[in-house]
Amino acid sequence: MNFKKIAIIGLGLIGGSLALAIKQTGFKGSITGIGRREENLITAKELEMIDDYSTVHAEGVKDADLVVLASSTGNFKDIMNNMKPGLKTGAIVTDVGSVKASIVRTLDDMMPDGVSFVGAHPIAGRECSGIDCASADLFRDSKCIITPSPRTVDHAIDNVIGMWETVGAVTLHMSPEEHDLIFAAVSHMPHVVAYAIINTIMDVNPNILHFGGTGLKDMSRIALSPAELWRDICSSNKDEVLNVLKKFSSTISDLIEKLQNSDWPGLEQEFNKAQEARKLIESD
Amino acid sequence: MNFKKIAIIGLGLIGGSLALAIKQTGFKGSITGIGRREENLITAKELEMIDDYSTVHAEGVKDADLVVLASSTGNFKDIMNNMKPGLKTGAIVTDVGSVKASIVRTLDDMMPDGVSFVGAHPIAGRECSGIDCASADLFRDSKCIITPSPRTVDHAIDNVIGMWETVGAVTLHMSPEEHDLIFAAVSHMPHVVAYAIINTIMDVNPNILHFGGTGLKDMSRIALSPAELWRDICSSNKDEVLNVLKKFSSTISDLIEKLQNSDWPGLEQEFNKAQEARKLIESD
Repeated sequence: MNFKKIAIIGLGLIGGSLALAIKQTGFKGSITGIGRREENLITAKELEMIDDYSTVHAEGVKDADLVVLASSTGNFKDIMNNMKPGLKTGAIVTDVGSVKASIVRTLDDMMPDGVSFVGAHPIAGRECSGIDCASADLFRDSKCIITPSPRTVDHAIDNVIGMWETVGAVTLHMSPEEHDLIFAAVSHMPHVVAYAIINTIMDVNPNILHFGGTGLKDMSRIALSPAELWRDICSSNKDEVLNVLKKFSSTISDLIEKLQNSDWPGLEQEFNKAQEARKLIESD
Repeated sequence: MNFKKIAIIGLGLIGGSLALAIKQTGFKGSITGIGRREENLITAKELEMIDDYSTVHAEGVKDADLVVLASSTGNFKDIMNNMKPGLKTGAIVTDVGSVKASIVRTLDDMMPDGVSFVGAHPIAGRECSGIDCASADLFRDSKCIITPSPRTVDHAIDNVIGMWETVGAVTLHMSPEEHDLIFAAVSHMPHVVAYAIINTIMDVNPNILHFGGTGLKDMSRIALSPAELWRDICSSNKDEVLNVLKKFSSTISDLIEKLQNSDWPGLEQEFNKAQEARKLIESD
């Protein structure tokens, strides 16, 4: 990596894991942790994730070659405003948000002259959140989507790609809009559905959840994800999530109709179609 | 176990695992495997799951103290008719079907004098099916629901409970109707939803499924379950599954409405409710 100083804003699961992973590569530069809660930053220093820390954005990013936004996406705009005075010319800002179009649009507009923004989304996560869940291996063999806009500078893209590949991720490129359409389908909709499954069961009878086997547990594991995170994702990617949820809703209505009409061959055909498709990703 | 001879009809994941598990307890009696495909029965004998086998139901069940129906529930009626002439007085018939009310009703009516039926549903399964997936540990620490009807004989219940507890399961009692209502919610609906998630994503774009992370994989794992099995479950428990799917559909509509209205606090509240409920079964 060509960086001497990396600043990571937000040391939760993703930010903390990234810091640990970079340290593990034998990175010779320094990592500064930035966050609101000093307690968390002290823990990060004790875990040797970071070399130093600051609770003041403009101070923490001083002299940083790379700034990674790894806090809640809802705070990116405020954070950008706060850190702006400290950013050096030539710095690269990147993020790890699960939604890209609105973030790239907003941050592209806010970058000072001589500072480049590169949107990125590492596809790595767990239901567990916070610094205690951070792991140096989180990104190993995972995908990281890089979402350049027409305004993104090539050398900045290369540097961000370099960092992700160093920590073991495979990088892919797509536009922020294409990213949001795809992830509304493969990630955002399934999360909303996981919450809906649990709430439906509780609605039937609040005392029966424990009768579920490993199938239900696997299926609803992502309902353990932080509610605020998924509220923010739904809000930032509202149109695409709505689109996919409506498609999902009509898939369900169609299955209900087949069940109502005792159309067993039709129902089996739908189940079969899904089973065949699901097999394709089993070995991934 | 008080049985000298056990006959198991259908040596797939559940039937095969039960045979292996019984053998592992040091069972002194004999196990006869019964099925339509001789090839599968030969495999079972080679794996020492069973002591002998038959493709003729009335012959295979001869002298059996316990007969376990572990084939597709859709075939139970035919199997019962076929094996009837071979059942000895005092025999106990039990099953492992995922739906209970219709099965218990049908089989209770078909039992010859002196033969008792006990409905049971071991809550153990995998997406993988067939004899190759069978494992002696499948029922260890799992739940097995026993669903007696007013016609079920006490000593028969005790014997079936004894078998399940010997192979490591914890047994619970409920009526067949209560069982079907609960499992429509915690198992049947989630399976249908898993298929619907995959089909919706394929509908958005058939080339994007592989972008899903571990969340999507976990969530859709049960879509690998055999389509015919789930068609049969939906058909046998039609009314309850319909009921729960309609409730689920309105939960989804409600979330769509909140999203449409940008009701972020409302959405977060729903997500939070699900997260809190899901935590309750995490340590189970």
